[in-house]
Amino acid sequence: MTYTKKLKAKIIDIEANKPIFLLNEKVAEDILASTNNRVVVRSAKECVTGLVDITNTVIDDYSIGIYKNQQSKLNINDGDLVEVNVMPYPESLQYIINKIKNKPLSEEEAYTIIKDVLDDKLSEAEISAFLTSLTINGLSLEETTYLCKALTNTGKTISFDRPEILDKHSIGGINGRVSMLVVPIIVANGYMMPKTASRSISSAAGTADCMEVLARVDLGADKIKEIVSDVGGVITWNGRLDLSPGDDKMIAIRHSLGLDPEGLVIASVLSKKKSAGSTHLIIDLPVGKEVKIKTREEAEKWAKKFLVISKELGIKTRVVLTNGEVPCGRNFGAALEAKSAFEILEGKYFDNLAAKACEIAGKLFDLVGKTKDGEGYDLARETIKSGKALEKFKEIIKAQEGNIFCSEDVPIAENKKIIINQSIGKIVDMDVALLTKIARLAGAPYDKGAGLVLLCDSGDELKEGDPILEIYANNLDKLDQAEEFAKENLKNIIQIERMILEEMDQ
Amino acid sequence: MTYTKKLKAKIIDIEANKPIFLLNEKVAEDILASTNNRVVVRSAKECVTGLVDITNTVIDDYSIGIYKNQQSKLNINDGDLVEVNVMPYPESLQYIINKIKNKPLSEEEAYTIIKDVLDDKLSEAEISAFLTSLTINGLSLEETTYLCKALTNTGKTISFDRPEILDKHSIGGINGRVSMLVVPIIVANGYMMPKTASRSISSAAGTADCMEVLARVDLGADKIKEIVSDVGGVITWNGRLDLSPGDDKMIAIRHSLGLDPEGLVIASVLSKKKSAGSTHLIIDLPVGKEVKIKTREEAEKWAKKFLVISKELGIKTRVVLTNGEVPCGRNFGAALEAKSAFEILEGKYFDNLAAKACEIAGKLFDLVGKTKDGEGYDLARETIKSGKALEKFKEIIKAQEGNIFCSEDVPIAENKKIIINQSIGKIVDMDVALLTKIARLAGAPYDKGAGLVLLCDSGDELKEGDPILEIYANNLDKLDQAEEFAKENLKNIIQIERMILEEMDQ
Repeated sequence: MTYTKKLKAKIIDIEANKPIFLLNEKVAEDILASTNNRVVVRSAKECVTGLVDITNTVIDDYSIGIYKNQQSKLNINDGDLVEVNVMPYPESLQYIINKIKNKPLSEEEAYTIIKDVLDDKLSEAEISAFLTSLTINGLSLEETTYLCKALTNTGKTISFDRPEILDKHSIGGINGRVSMLVVPIIVANGYMMPKTASRSISSAAGTADCMEVLARVDLGADKIKEIVSDVGGVITWNGRLDLSPGDDKMIAIRHSLGLDPEGLVIASVLSKKKSAGSTHLIIDLPVGKEVKIKTREEAEKWAKKFLVISKELGIKTRVVLTNGEVPCGRNFGAALEAKSAFEILEGKYFDNLAAKACEIAGKLFDLVGKTKDGEGYDLARETIKSGKALEKFKEIIKAQEGNIFCSEDVPIAENKKIIINQSIGKIVDMDVALLTKIARLAGAPYDKGAGLVLLCDSGDELKEGDPILEIYANNLDKLDQAEEFAKENLKNIIQIERMILEEMDQ
Repeated sequence: MTYTKKLKAKIIDIEANKPIFLLNEKVAEDILASTNNRVVVRSAKECVTGLVDITNTVIDDYSIGIYKNQQSKLNINDGDLVEVNVMPYPESLQYIINKIKNKPLSEEEAYTIIKDVLDDKLSEAEISAFLTSLTINGLSLEETTYLCKALTNTGKTISFDRPEILDKHSIGGINGRVSMLVVPIIVANGYMMPKTASRSISSAAGTADCMEVLARVDLGADKIKEIVSDVGGVITWNGRLDLSPGDDKMIAIRHSLGLDPEGLVIASVLSKKKSAGSTHLIIDLPVGKEVKIKTREEAEKWAKKFLVISKELGIKTRVVLTNGEVPCGRNFGAALEAKSAFEILEGKYFDNLAAKACEIAGKLFDLVGKTKDGEGYDLARETIKSGKALEKFKEIIKAQEGNIFCSEDVPIAENKKIIINQSIGKIVDMDVALLTKIARLAGAPYDKGAGLVLLCDSGDELKEGDPILEIYANNLDKLDQAEEFAKENLKNIIQIERMILEEMDQ
């Protein structure tokens, strides 16, 4: 019972990434008769909803501007007639309003909101209001579970023919690619571990960025199943898998405001794990003043929720709190971090990154019953030492169509600058956030060869003139900027022990 | 110290209403090197900030797509080179994050946020998060004052050569154009009253819509000053005056979610009044179950804030709580409501709309000291009775270049349907929200002739077959839809007294 208007489609030769239709002011007033800015557009076969932008150029009183991606959804040509009418406010809008008023979400309401996010029935401003209300009013355990199920049920799933599918996940933006070590260690011992990982959002590189230096990571679900049944494991990007597409859409809006309420992050992580078929899972929560979780008390709250909800989903889970105060390994940047994973597997050194990987792989062995509680670490370490983990890593790279099989072959950026120390004393702290910033200024994560290598460690006694950082970049302008920033902020990046803590005048 | 890229401007022949630039994926990665989606674009003379949309059609690796309105801001032609670099997150983003964490806004922070809203440095999603945080965490009196001052100081002002500038404002979407009666009553008694009003958002018509039926309402500040110094008053649209442009921008985002926290509405109203030069102000707060403010307790909280903040701004203010449970006058829709204003001034009848106008004009007389407290009503009523208010109304219309000077000449829509009563009994209630919906289905507020006239009143004894509503519309499809909706919902629109309140089986 709404007013319908026939309009001529005018195709706009742009691939707009949002579902927007262009109307001129007069037609918009006639159809919408309100500030409700959503329309339903119907072609002979298809029906698409979207938001309206008003333009008084190019679109006349008898036309509607349709971007190329909506054109293909509607299956029409330029000049075809479409029927347009106002779309009533979606039901989910009322549920968002209720949550703003601190009324708890029901299971059905959580599902409807996620469904409408996916169907482009909610605007970015409305989704943002929802995410803000979750951040301020919080989510109960029930609401987190509902949201997690909604995200899972609106996405695709992958299933494997095996009772035990092992996995790990880390919250919070530290360097060092633990997963690239854990997967070969686990798989070399006969378990399946299909690791689907993200790209970097705010760090110097994500696991998917690093693995992409060595092999293909744009694998579909079928290819993943094939590789895993063949070699036991995979390390790939989750972005093409649509395991939790509602979550993917919300992450883009959450980022600039840091809208990361516990419940939402937990629902996001566990929905992707459930969809990927995980049965045994280690959650790594780094704790430190520069990472997402600042204190142990906070981390314990997160842990409890992870445990309850993963149990609800049927995933056997253990949470570990880890040291998020120090750099994990010495490299920042996709190629440099991939290189250090190789070097550890090749037995070149055993640093805190290697130790963390063995601890986490060990906990997975304990959890799945391969080892007695506490004995997994030794098995993990032995798997590296024997070279079995390196062999498995090469098998996985080959299965993912890669052709880099040793640390020397990892391609690092052409240009390098070395930062020299200017003061004397013992290193007491290093700022991971500032180190990440240098790597990003140098071009990470898009320039995969860009990043930095730490040439010193906490506890080292520095002399003036000691080299302390190497910065790598392919773009010379970016290299200069990263160098300039590093020099300006040196005292905060590498902190030297000082006895006078504060001084006051008069 | 950010990475800058030179790109060729490709002008897109669309007047986009948001500051968006088009980049292809590769260039976006190179410039942004993060999910930060803001850029600064510099031409030889100008500099504009905006958000990025990614498109892989039409824009190549050496170009940037620029919509027509940004083209004119940058003062460039197709093919010109522009410099593009990433815009750092605006400072205001941190203040929004703080407010989400319930940290109070300082005066400077409130100002920076409003400034960045105006300069397009914040996305709609970020503005929405800010508005949601104000809704959930609330605003203290101080924060409301800061926001009000920020909205005022970022807008234009109008000033008059007179110590007393009278004004009124009503919160909350009831029909009946009180202002069209109050202005001529006040002005006929020698005071200045420049009434700047809004168009309808959710009601059947706003004061600006109604006045536009009779005269021009798209007046600029200079024209308003000229008319007011000439005839003493004006009734015009506030939309072209930029009295509080930050507010205008936020209102569009607030609407669908009903993000109307007290503090924000109060800051919005008072900033516009301050900018328009008001010195004496009556605030009308309708209270009722279908309007914004539901209870007297709630209204008293609103009132207290209005009083404190208007005092801070130097506006002498009185707040009145009014009956928002019943229709105010019998007409809904721009032309029909304008017509009833005329009919009251012409002395054809004196209904509850006329009474409300005399009460409010009377309170203004009391407030400014023209009458002793409580005696203003009689003066207002006398000003109508004597015909002086009608004469002044015609003068104002003439000054605003109108040419309709009596109720018979107001143009109503061509087509009419009458709704007939179906049941017997006394009318105990009428639903203003449903009546508004019928008027809007008929085409209000964009079809100025559309709307409805109530043919009955609370307390009337109805017989079957009595006509109870007339619906008017220019568009026959819309008329049919409004009629259908009215017939289907008749029992809820006009409620008849019933003795059985509820019944239960077995």
